[in-house]
Amino acid sequence: MRVITLTTDFGSQDWFVGTMKGVLLGVNPKATLVDITHEIPPGDIRAGAFALMASYMFFPKGTVHVAVVDPGVGSERKAIAVQTANYTFVGPDNGVLSFALANEKITDVRQLENNKYFLNPVSHTFHGRDIFAPIAAHLSGGVAVSNLGPKQKHIIQLPWPRPEISRNRISGEVIYVDRFGNAITNILNTCLAGMKEAEVFIAGKRACRVKPFYQSVPAGKAVAVPGSSGFLEIAVNGGSAAQSLGIKIGNTLTIRKVVAG
Amino acid sequence: MRVITLTTDFGSQDWFVGTMKGVLLGVNPKATLVDITHEIPPGDIRAGAFALMASYMFFPKGTVHVAVVDPGVGSERKAIAVQTANYTFVGPDNGVLSFALANEKITDVRQLENNKYFLNPVSHTFHGRDIFAPIAAHLSGGVAVSNLGPKQKHIIQLPWPRPEISRNRISGEVIYVDRFGNAITNILNTCLAGMKEAEVFIAGKRACRVKPFYQSVPAGKAVAVPGSSGFLEIAVNGGSAAQSLGIKIGNTLTIRKVVAG
Amino acid sequence: MRVITLTTDFGSQDWFVGTMKGVLLGVNPKATLVDITHEIPPGDIRAGAFALMASYMFFPKGTVHVAVVDPGVGSERKAIAVQTANYTFVGPDNGVLSFALANEKITDVRQLENNKYFLNPVSHTFHGRDIFAPIAAHLSGGVAVSNLGPKQKHIIQLPWPRPEISRNRISGEVIYVDRFGNAITNILNTCLAGMKEAEVFIAGKRACRVKPFYQSVPAGKAVAVPGSSGFLEIAVNGGSAAQSLGIKIGNTLTIRKVVAG
Repeated sequence: MRVITLTTDFGSQDWFVGTMKGVLLGVNPKATLVDITHEIPPGDIRAGAFALMASYMFFPKGTVHVAVVDPGVGSERKAIAVQTANYTFVGPDNGVLSFALANEKITDVRQLENNKYFLNPVSHTFHGRDIFAPIAAHLSGGVAVSNLGPKQKHIIQLPWPRPEISRNRISGEVIYVDRFGNAITNILNTCLAGMKEAEVFIAGKRACRVKPFYQSVPAGKAVAVPGSSGFLEIAVNGGSAAQSLGIKIGNTLTIRKVVAG
Repeated sequence: MRVITLTTDFGSQDWFVGTMKGVLLGVNPKATLVDITHEIPPGDIRAGAFALMASYMFFPKGTVHVAVVDPGVGSERKAIAVQTANYTFVGPDNGVLSFALANEKITDVRQLENNKYFLNPVSHTFHGRDIFAPIAAHLSGGVAVSNLGPKQKHIIQLPWPRPEISRNRISGEVIYVDRFGNAITNILNTCLAGMKEAEVFIAGKRACRVKPFYQSVPAGKAVAVPGSSGFLEIAVNGGSAAQSLGIKIGNTLTIRKVVAG
Repeated sequence: MRVITLTTDFGSQDWFVGTMKGVLLGVNPKATLVDITHEIPPGDIRAGAFALMASYMFFPKGTVHVAVVDPGVGSERKAIAVQTANYTFVGPDNGVLSFALANEKITDVRQLENNKYFLNPVSHTFHGRDIFAPIAAHLSGGVAVSNLGPKQKHIIQLPWPRPEISRNRISGEVIYVDRFGNAITNILNTCLAGMKEAEVFIAGKRACRVKPFYQSVPAGKAVAVPGSSGFLEIAVNGGSAAQSLGIKIGNTLTIRKVVAG
């Protein structure tokens, strides 16, 4: 048994994901397949990279993680497999793997060129089915990444917006909005360690306090909580922060330490 | 092999459900995971309770059913595991398990307090991943509920609207609307046994007759049928009753026996 | 291990698909279940037939394919199991299997009448759970279709719009629009073999050229590409052809060979 995860923008209305699974099970009937999500907005590489980063390390050692958000499919972009100390990653070399890999000890990066492991003939528009699925299944069955093609030195990094941190103040931005309307920021929970009491300002206006959980405030009220993905998130207890506060990806915010006085 | 089912309001756009599955498979690689649904409206405990009630008994004996609709996550609400004659149920003690449990012979209720079975450190906002998933995986692997924490006597019951039943008349309400726009009521199919011919009135107006299946009436026409979840439902053949008739959850209706005359 | 695929219009918001899986695993705990899609528009038999046709042959030999788009459930329509050289198909006899079966060597067609393999009592509204799921599980466990009921000679064929093909010109229509807004036509990629350069006209107006992949044209521009399902599709690089060009299912189009001159 080896787990293979799938993170894509293929959606669930068509047959795309099911078809990838048919190919995966044809190559490795013993693979255990897990969907992370297929609802990444079409072509939104950064959202795919964030979803993978927030989830991959909760899977057993040896898991093969496949991420296909691939607007450049069929063009000159490279396809890669990356071996790390604990996992194997497969996807286009367009940054979709880069947030997760930033936390991993990389031991080998290979370009997917050995078409012995492809589903031939390869289409120009569906490498998820024709390249990534069969490669992932072979990897989960024991094939080493070194068999897949030539070594590659660097992978494409997606820019990560770094927060500005000073003693009493942190400035950051919203990088993801989840289905509950929680606005996840680029500010690590651990950055708030020194601030026993803190307030959040969005667009210069005081929005809420930092508290341990959603129900720390009355229903309908805004709150910032240390999020389960490791980053501070803005929420509304029982509601949607994105809707109530009009928060969008890219909005900037400031956390200020509350000083008694 | 033990089946674990998941009923949540986590949606499918983010990585939440996938992450739970990573944790589940890390603890019990042999578990078979089945999604009941993740599209319960955010925080809608009653919809989650209904979905679980309508499906749980179709799973093999020994299945572990996990339900996480948990607006109070991180607050004082309890988390429980409930052993019944045929199944094990895991979730917050907020009523989400109560409709299913009303049909089951309960043998043990435990509070989830033994953190040996948690994913530590436990976050304040995602007990699905940190508590319910690892607990369910341990249960599916053979751990008994008695290991999980102290006994609890009662579980929180969600109110169930009881229909009023007389000889020629039943009054009830709509409790769920499904993706087809069928309006499922709180009136058990079996209550209609004595009414060979019956008419349905919604808001005092005659809406349709009770018939055995959707195509008992012409396309576009309303009909009430004994539903597959055990309750009478209002449908429109080839259409949406919710849309055509403007039916909403909570709407009241009356069934009247048709008396020859 | 035998794979069972599911293609339905049951959606993911309710418990319908999960319940089918409970029944499937109750009969055959070793089955591997794969969702093709459950988001077929309610009652859209042709969309279900197309999704199944585009995906079924990517699954391992021996896979049992279940398709339930069944607006006539409970009425006089027949339910069938079809054995072909490589696969077994199960569903209502309303055309939903017919596009896939047109490519297969059929060896046996049976009506599902032997209620020994049903989940009894059978409801009038959910044969997916009560008939198709248990039958599919028994088939995946080794039961032959010949046990299921009487032979049937013909199955109901859904009409397939054939394109008109001449030396320099092909006329066809849009038969499916996918989640990316790509408009899939009824024109096989192989029909374009003789046309090195070709232009696409929609409603008499020149829309785009035929190119090998989406990024063959600048972002935001339309292009026709040989699609991964075997049919020519109209796309917009980085966008939605359906939205940008206002394309709908049923729209006609013409491909004209570009003659140097």
